[in-house]
Amino acid sequence: MAHQQWHCGPAGCPPHGKRRRGEALEQAILAAAVRELAEVGYDAMTVEGVAARAHTGKAALYRRWPAKEDLVVDALHFMLPPCGALPDTGSVRDDLVELLSAMAATIRTPAGTAMQRMLGSQRCAPEILETVHGKVIGPRREMLLEALRRGAQRGEVRPDAVTVLVAQVGSAMILQHLADDDRPVDRRVVEEIVDQVVMPLLRP
Amino acid sequence: MAHQQWHCGPAGCPPHGKRRRGEALEQAILAAAVRELAEVGYDAMTVEGVAARAHTGKAALYRRWPAKEDLVVDALHFMLPPCGALPDTGSVRDDLVELLSAMAATIRTPAGTAMQRMLGSQRCAPEILETVHGKVIGPRREMLLEALRRGAQRGEVRPDAVTVLVAQVGSAMILQHLADDDRPVDRRVVEEIVDQVVMPLLRP
Repeated sequence: MAHQQWHCGPAGCPPHGKRRRGEALEQAILAAAVRELAEVGYDAMTVEGVAARAHTGKAALYRRWPAKEDLVVDALHFMLPPCGALPDTGSVRDDLVELLSAMAATIRTPAGTAMQRMLGSQRCAPEILETVHGKVIGPRREMLLEALRRGAQRGEVRPDAVTVLVAQVGSAMILQHLADDDRPVDRRVVEEIVDQVVMPLLRP
Repeated sequence: MAHQQWHCGPAGCPPHGKRRRGEALEQAILAAAVRELAEVGYDAMTVEGVAARAHTGKAALYRRWPAKEDLVVDALHFMLPPCGALPDTGSVRDDLVELLSAMAATIRTPAGTAMQRMLGSQRCAPEILETVHGKVIGPRREMLLEALRRGAQRGEVRPDAVTVLVAQVGSAMILQHLADDDRPVDRRVVEEIVDQVVMPLLRP
């Protein structure tokens, strides 16, 4: 895929206030890029929009990130929360509720929303998708699978349910729930999904 | 939510060729709107982009659809395929494979892609979401649930698995599969989802 060049958007605010340099300015731009991505999506994201949100000028962006996808990759690396440790409650049901609740909470952050919108864009550069998969989707899938493996060792999970496909059921249901009218996924919803859908599928 | 006004984009092609009027021009515009939605998404969609794809001028669009969401609602009504009849193979497994394969095929059409991107946009007007739910999501969910009900009457499905949540598992897995690298969902993938995930969940 050809690199997507920056395109013009609404005029941004001029730089104002105290002059930030180096890391502080860089982090302000990365946070602004995530907010822009979450609100308008990858395709409609503009250099003016990001500069205005970061209260800086376009030159500060172009100097650091000549192409849009470079900024997006850096912004995602900066903002996406690390995976955290796999919960170990001793019950596969409770491990899954913990894991999926943390996942649902992450999706609702600006970085999570930005990530989701990125996956829905058809113009997304491969290096962006790799960042999202490598940092977020891959590790979380591995944790879900590991929770099933532990459950199988304890005899709570039938061994042939320990598959990549089965491990994804809970997260697929959460994503579908979010896609419906953008409803919040609270703990009650996660428990309903785990108890009505995931657990009946795991039981020996 | 306030109505989103059209905003400027790249200059569109001037009208050319034979002059179309009335229904022919209208349908060309609706089809162009769906292609634009599928390719650039709702937020980045512009009146110039749609006019260029339809080989017409902006005035032809503004005259018919003063606001962006009016055009989008009409375009979705025009392009989204009707639901079709509920398959009745006599086996819940085969009914679900048929239904979910048809669903996966619909999602891959330009109208299906447009619809998905719409659901991912945070600026989507309520009347657009209502159109998508009323015409596509609602009727298909009802068919999935009806397939489970029939299966329960035949003794193939445990009665307490006939729930809205369980009925959505197959479609949630298909959507998640599509979100991953935009991989195609062929019949083999649908059968894997039904056999490894949905059927173990339904069995009495």
